[in-house]
Amino acid sequence: MTIMTRFAGLALAGLMIAGPVAAQDAVADAIKARQSQMRLYAFNLGQLGAMAKGAIEYNADQASAAAGNLALLSTLNAGAMWVPGSDSMSVSNTRALPELWDNMADVGAKAQALAAATAAMNDAAGNGLEALQAAMGPLGGACGACHKAYRAPE
Amino acid sequence: MTIMTRFAGLALAGLMIAGPVAAQDAVADAIKARQSQMRLYAFNLGQLGAMAKGAIEYNADQASAAAGNLALLSTLNAGAMWVPGSDSMSVSNTRALPELWDNMADVGAKAQALAAATAAMNDAAGNGLEALQAAMGPLGGACGACHKAYRAPE
Repeated sequence: MTIMTRFAGLALAGLMIAGPVAAQDAVADAIKARQSQMRLYAFNLGQLGAMAKGAIEYNADQASAAAGNLALLSTLNAGAMWVPGSDSMSVSNTRALPELWDNMADVGAKAQALAAATAAMNDAAGNGLEALQAAMGPLGGACGACHKAYRAPE
Repeated sequence: MTIMTRFAGLALAGLMIAGPVAAQDAVADAIKARQSQMRLYAFNLGQLGAMAKGAIEYNADQASAAAGNLALLSTLNAGAMWVPGSDSMSVSNTRALPELWDNMADVGAKAQALAAATAAMNDAAGNGLEALQAAMGPLGGACGACHKAYRAPE
């Protein structure tokens, strides 16, 4: 493969990077990326929550799809999205407290707990409304544990 | 588990759904969710593209993390994000052409091709800059194939 075809591929992918990315842009991109991950969590969790509450009818296929997505999302490698300097004391467009970066072992443990809770939901969601509802509390708790410790109030 | 603790879990997860979600809100949420997936693609692809171009130094661990994320993202169940009525003729905040919904078999084939390209990148990215560069063209091509067919120009 020639350099030209490699760069044609880059252009197709829309990667018009004109030299080293400024650190400020890198921080902004990282924040937007993790907020995108959070939005995808919320979108899929929202479907399960609506079923759990009876706001929409339980559907095993839809529940399984949403739960499977949560399980995948919780296994994304998040390192690049949580760059130093992207905390709420350093920049204005995030609620991520600087304490997060001081407690990475705890953050990792909470991420593992979330992955365990999404896996449990993934096992449960297709097995009826009761099973879904039973998995909802631990999953909400795993989300909330990190938010409570490391997210500033709105 | 009681109803109360189930709902405590929902509250922790921030799911304050007060009855059936309006169809318009559901469309808006679906569009934001798929745009979030696209942003996560771009974030991870951007790191690989910057290495491929030499804008940042090749790093096998970082490349593998980004490529692994692309592979995961391409296996998300996208059904709920591409709801009918969320095309560019029906709503203003999307570039997804209505033709997409008329060609779901082709869209599915293109999604499979993207998953194959991200899997190939995932195999290659940690094996040196040349391997990463060689996987970049097919991956960019897989992204571009869907954009070219089903995304309106900006």
